[in-house]
Amino acid sequence: MPEPTPTPGTVERLIGELNRLPGIGPKSAQRLAYHLLRASADDVRCLAEALTALKERTRLCSICCNVTDSDPCNICRSEQRNKEQICIVEQPQDILAIEHTGAYHGRYHVLHGAISPTEGVGPDNVRISHLMRRLDSDHASEVILATNTNFEGETTAMYLTRLIAPLNIMVTRLARGLPFGTELEYADDVTLTRALEGRQSF
Amino acid sequence: MPEPTPTPGTVERLIGELNRLPGIGPKSAQRLAYHLLRASADDVRCLAEALTALKERTRLCSICCNVTDSDPCNICRSEQRNKEQICIVEQPQDILAIEHTGAYHGRYHVLHGAISPTEGVGPDNVRISHLMRRLDSDHASEVILATNTNFEGETTAMYLTRLIAPLNIMVTRLARGLPFGTELEYADDVTLTRALEGRQSF
Repeated sequence: MPEPTPTPGTVERLIGELNRLPGIGPKSAQRLAYHLLRASADDVRCLAEALTALKERTRLCSICCNVTDSDPCNICRSEQRNKEQICIVEQPQDILAIEHTGAYHGRYHVLHGAISPTEGVGPDNVRISHLMRRLDSDHASEVILATNTNFEGETTAMYLTRLIAPLNIMVTRLARGLPFGTELEYADDVTLTRALEGRQSF
Repeated sequence: MPEPTPTPGTVERLIGELNRLPGIGPKSAQRLAYHLLRASADDVRCLAEALTALKERTRLCSICCNVTDSDPCNICRSEQRNKEQICIVEQPQDILAIEHTGAYHGRYHVLHGAISPTEGVGPDNVRISHLMRRLDSDHASEVILATNTNFEGETTAMYLTRLIAPLNIMVTRLARGLPFGTELEYADDVTLTRALEGRQSF
């Protein structure tokens, strides 16, 4: 019988930790661990420190609930952002995507989730009450719903629309339709139906 | 003009560090970073500690050059391994693959690379002289060449064969042929040629 395993404890432990990350299987974890073994001590230290800092230095912005090093976050603090526009997203990374377009100059609100009756996530489990207090005090003129276009995102958008409607604030949501570069014959039925329903004059 | 970026420094830094790892693009790095933000502080600390330990606790085994926490490594220390068989591999992770089969009970030698004239890697840049000293003192009876089956691996295997031949040690190499589950019509020419050349009586 061969010995159980030749992997030294330390490397094996790192492979195990990496393997727990989403999208990183056993083979990738192994490849990463051996890459890091060959990498410079400085590089590995930088990565370890960045990980430690993640939990120690970040918090949620008290205004928009985005992840931030300083409170309020850069966007909420900025004088160049339109304070009356609030774009509601499910996750902090959604802000990255919208900022990357350069097409939005208002502020955000991060719900940190979406209402999902099937998974037992109700309105109280996402940051909706925080949003409602904020709408009241911020004199918002427009709320843009930028939740995902799946069942949970739609449910959340509908719930918020009903909640905000009485406040005399304009509620809009991101347009649905054909994504850039689509060939019509390959578009799915729901997308095509929504593109038809939302057709614009040309 | 929108602000340059809303990502807080700490998250952005971790995304940058993760993005430098092989096989992890900007989108994966972002997904991992936000996953870690949601993960428990303990989980993130474990990963950071495993990274730090990697550089602090591991060294190379003075006998076989495998990565190890203790010197000599588990395999070289084991009384159950055949000390007269030495399997030569390019990288430490190759040992994992061979051990995983449970089909080999000898010892190893890790070259930490392969001879590659095109990339300027000569015999002095891999641990060949270390191997030769060891063959001399270890009374090896068989050397199994388990280098990769690409150009560099073959070059290294040929070079080692010539070097070891005068020492009266048997030199073998892993069989080449059709991998398990192959459909013949999809096998490449080189593999099929080698499978023919190496055909065995049935």
